[in-house]
This record gives sequence, C-alpha cells and structure tokens, in this order.
Amino acid sequence: MTVEIASLLQAIESDMQQVVCAPELSYAPLYAMLRYHLGWQDAQGAAVAGRRGKRLRPLLCLLACHAVGSNWQQALPAATALELIHNFTLIHDDIEDRGETRHDRPTVWTLWGVPQGVNAGDAMWALARRHLLTLSQMGHPAERVLAVVSMVEESCLELCQGQYLDMASEGDYTIDQERYLRMVRGKTAALTRACVMAGAMLGGAAPGLAEQMAVFGLELGIAFQITDDLLGIWGDSSVTGKSTATDLEARKMTLPIIHALAWERERGQQELVTLLRQPPSDGQLVPMLAVLERSGAREVCQRAIDAAQERMRDAWHNMHLQGPEAAQLYELACSLVGRQF
Amino acid sequence: MTVEIASLLQAIESDMQQVVCAPELSYAPLYAMLRYHLGWQDAQGAAVAGRRGKRLRPLLCLLACHAVGSNWQQALPAATALELIHNFTLIHDDIEDRGETRHDRPTVWTLWGVPQGVNAGDAMWALARRHLLTLSQMGHPAERVLAVVSMVEESCLELCQGQYLDMASEGDYTIDQERYLRMVRGKTAALTRACVMAGAMLGGAAPGLAEQMAVFGLELGIAFQITDDLLGIWGDSSVTGKSTATDLEARKMTLPIIHALAWERERGQQELVTLLRQPPSDGQLVPMLAVLERSGAREVCQRAIDAAQERMRDAWHNMHLQGPEAAQLYELACSLVGRQF
Repeated sequence: MTVEIASLLQAIESDMQQVVCAPELSYAPLYAMLRYHLGWQDAQGAAVAGRRGKRLRPLLCLLACHAVGSNWQQALPAATALELIHNFTLIHDDIEDRGETRHDRPTVWTLWGVPQGVNAGDAMWALARRHLLTLSQMGHPAERVLAVVSMVEESCLELCQGQYLDMASEGDYTIDQERYLRMVRGKTAALTRACVMAGAMLGGAAPGLAEQMAVFGLELGIAFQITDDLLGIWGDSSVTGKSTATDLEARKMTLPIIHALAWERERGQQELVTLLRQPPSDGQLVPMLAVLERSGAREVCQRAIDAAQERMRDAWHNMHLQGPEAAQLYELACSLVGRQF
Repeated sequence: MTVEIASLLQAIESDMQQVVCAPELSYAPLYAMLRYHLGWQDAQGAAVAGRRGKRLRPLLCLLACHAVGSNWQQALPAATALELIHNFTLIHDDIEDRGETRHDRPTVWTLWGVPQGVNAGDAMWALARRHLLTLSQMGHPAERVLAVVSMVEESCLELCQGQYLDMASEGDYTIDQERYLRMVRGKTAALTRACVMAGAMLGGAAPGLAEQMAVFGLELGIAFQITDDLLGIWGDSSVTGKSTATDLEARKMTLPIIHALAWERERGQQELVTLLRQPPSDGQLVPMLAVLERSGAREVCQRAIDAAQERMRDAWHNMHLQGPEAAQLYELACSLVGRQF
C-alpha cells in the first residue's frame, strides 16, 4: 500500500517541532534561533506559515523504510535527525559563505551575529544526534541502532570534508571534475545516501540490500547536485526562485564552469577565466554564457546526470524491490533529478 | 595496582594521533588545522614539541574506569573522544570570543579564517564521535555502548546550552549566582561529569555507582571552574601563565564579579558596575580589586569551592571504592581544585 506524502510530511514536521523545543525558559532564545531557521517562527518568536525546506531528505528516509516492506514510523527519529543535520549544515554554511538570506529571510548569523550563529548550528547538530539515539527506545535491536548511528556519523565527517574542499576551491579555476565529484559526494550525496540507507536499515533490510540502497542514494545525490548546477545557470527563474545569474555572480565552482574552464585551458584560451577574475558585473553574463555554450557544458552536465541516473537504476534493479511501496521511493528520487530547465 | 600517569598520557596522545589523521591527501590541509590546534604541528605542518593541553579530561575518564576495577584500556576510545570534544569546543569558543591566542600560539581562525575555523571545529567533533563508536568493536555489549553514546550526546547538548548562556550574559551586569551555576554546569561540569561517567560505565559499574560518579564529576567541574575564576583574578601569574588582570580586562562574568556586583546592588552602590562599563584601562585594576575585596568575593568563592568539594566527597564515600586504583582518581580530582592562589 502506498502512503500519503502529506501525512509523512506532517509526521516529520511534528516530530521536528517536538525535538527543537526549549527544555527550560533560560534557553528559550537559543531554541528561538533554531525555530526561526526551520521556518516556524519570525525573529521575534511569533509563529509564521512561511516558506520552509522541502524536507526531501527525511521523505527519502521514510520512503526507503516503507520500500523495504516495513512501517515508515520505524524510521521517523532517523528521518527527523537527518533533516536537522541538513539544517545544521545550512546554518554553518551561511556563516562560511557569508550568505545573508535563505528562503527570502535573513539568515541566523545576520540576525544574531556569528558567535551565536556558530553555537546555534552546534546545538542543532547535538539535538539531531540525541534524537537519533531515541531509536533504541523503539524496539530496534541495539546492534542495529549502533550500525545506523555509525553510518550517520561517517556521513557527517564526509560532510565536513566535502565542505572543506568546497571552501578551499573558492577562486581556484584549475580544479578538475574528479575533485568536483569528491566535493559533491561529501557535500550532497553523503547525506542523501545516509537517508535512504538509514531507512532501509531501520526497515530491517539485509546488508546486501542496504548496500545497494547506499549506491542508489549516493548516485541520486550526485544527479541531484548536477541538476542544481544546471538550474543555477539555465534554470527558469520563475520555477527555481533565483535569478539565472546568481551562481555565475557568486563565482560558484559548478560543473558547467569547471568543464568550460578545462575546455578553454585545452585550447589555450582564457576568456572565461578572465571574466571570472573580474568583479561581478551585468555585462559579463552574456559572454560567460557564450563560452559555456561553446564548450558544450550543458551537454556534458546532462550526460553526467544521465550516467548517475543509469547507476541509480542499476542499483534499483539489483534490489529487486516490488510493489507500489517501492515505486513511491523510486518516483520521488526520479522527480528530484528530472526537474525542469 | 596503580597505573603510571605517564603511560596513560602516552596512550591518549597516541590514540588521538591515530584518529586525527587525513584519510587521503586531498583532505590533508583540513587535518593539518586540527593537528595544529592539538599542538602537534606548526602552521606549516612541521612537527613541534610545544605546549599542549593537559589532557585532564581523558585522564579522569581512564582513572574512573580503573577505579571501578577494570582495565583502563576498555575506556580509551571514550577518553580520546571526550578530549577531542573538549577541543572542538575550544576551536569554536575561540571564534565566538574572538580569542586570538591559545597556549601562546595564534588560534585556528586567526590563521585560516572564520569559515575554515568553523568547519575545522565541526570536523573535530565528527571525528570524536566516530571514534567513540569504535567502542562497539572492543567487546563492550551494544547496550552499554549506546548508553555511553547517549550520555555523551546529552552532555554535548548541555555544552551548547551553557555556551549560549555564557555569550548571552556578556555585558549583563545583573546575572545572579543561579544563572552562573547553570552556565558552569553546562560549559565545564557537563564534560567532567561525562568523562568520569563514561569511564565508570565502560568499567562495568552498576547504574547506582555510575550515578554517584556523575555527581562526583559534576561537582568536580563546578569546583574546578570556580577555582579557575579565583586564579583568573588573584592567581600567581608565574604559575597560571596569565596576568591577573586578564579576566577583569575581558569583563568575564566570573563568580567573584557576579558576587561583588550583587553586593554593590544591595547597598545601592555602583562603583564596580561603572568601572566595568568603561573601556578597559590600567587605572581600573586597583579600584576593581578593592571592591572585590570589600565585598568578600574571595571568601564567597572559597566557600562555594568548599561546598562543591564537600558534595564531591559525599559522592565519593557513597561509591565505596577501595584500594590504590580508586585513590588515584580521587587524588587527581582533588589536585585540580586545590591549586595555588
């Protein structure tokens, strides 16, 4: 039987609300920062019904648990914890990138300062992990809980390593696709992998099945990130909500840029690299897009997405999951990489 | 049988060295930041034999394991993890307090910037927790490992909550002793408690014994912090290595200051609060110290330390631990709160 996505989203949101809640009055302002970040409150603490995250990661986790034939509620604390971990990374990323807005609202550090922002991110991470450990009160064997916690911790370390690479690559116009993929594996795919793996493990999947699920989640994350890179340059701004120029102006080392730079280097040209080294201006957009098109960056990205999707499909078939429960996970995954651009 | 403290310190340092080690070349600069912070390398990555942390927390953990009658090696991954957690907090604290030096060397963020500094702290924390989970490969029952991990995570959340209170108290000259103690419990005592508790739990202590150990560690942390507050104002700078004026100049809300401010408020006086509101200058030191002395701040702190030590002693006697193994833990604990000033 399929499950209603709306009820999953409601369960996730309600579980998150219970976790991110001040245990006593003196800590209320700390929790108010977290609740603000999660989109539940405004900066003064009043409830808002604004734009929140899409909660894709916890959905993947619950649907993976359901897909291997178990009740999705068995994975709920893990789903919630992984969404909170994702949000911890967003709070710290905003500080690291000096990002001033997210979902059209000021980021945590712009409102409460860098010191409180760093600590708020730490608190979000600590809350996530404490909640993950409540799995042991749900009837899961202790060994299974330990295996899930260990897998999640491994992924967290990969997130930090990926984030290091990302920051170290800033302004480095010579990085290659191998380094890009390493970065994406750490920054994006480690977490999507952890989500589906946690769901499968908590659904009682045998190790072989969980391993294939890991491949599925990893390739999904890679395809998702490259799709995001494409959308960041050629996306329909009325759909993506951000101007097509944003990623170019921010000098993000996305796959199209990395490819076009390598293509130029091979030809001894340096039009794009010269443009990137200049301070951002409106006039740069047209010539940048021209180099990107000439280099075939769009097609290269599309091929990379296709290849990741192919590996996703292979992993999927190796799992031999049947029925409408499994189909729901597969469909959500495909929808994330088949977005319009 | 007693254990040699030097061999414990060596085991801790060697375990830490193995944990904080780049898994591959591309992440080497990230790990170099962590190894620099831990005092093993200079900023260029060359080995140094400089001043390191005293590794008191992991020592407490190993001695607690030994004190309850077990082999200290059973607790080594936890001891190492707790020292790394302590160091994660130092990396982030330095960013939050804009601390530019630690152990006479520039702090991580001053060398590599705030963005990499935040992420380096995150990576240290992730490494600590991944290492803690290796306890399950040492023959400990899964339930015991889960109990230790849950206890450590709870303490980590308390650290973040305590750090929030500490930052929020900056410049607030009305905070009372209750809030101060809440701050100290979170910032300092949660971790000393976790150290001795982890040692006892991994040494196979029964729940009742572990609970008394928790009280022992908590009161030790409180006594330790108030001792630190006293040393920060009246300490012998040739012993503490910092000028007596440092804490006053930094406007730290330590117990002597909090007491003296309350004492002044009761009398409708405001000499100290006026001095604190002015920018730091050499001429302030003498009148500040005079108010502190008049208010009896030294005696109040000494009484608070005595009271915490009394509760430590009670917890100790309730544990009925005998023999030279137990005596080693008790002696280390006492030496930490009986420092010269």
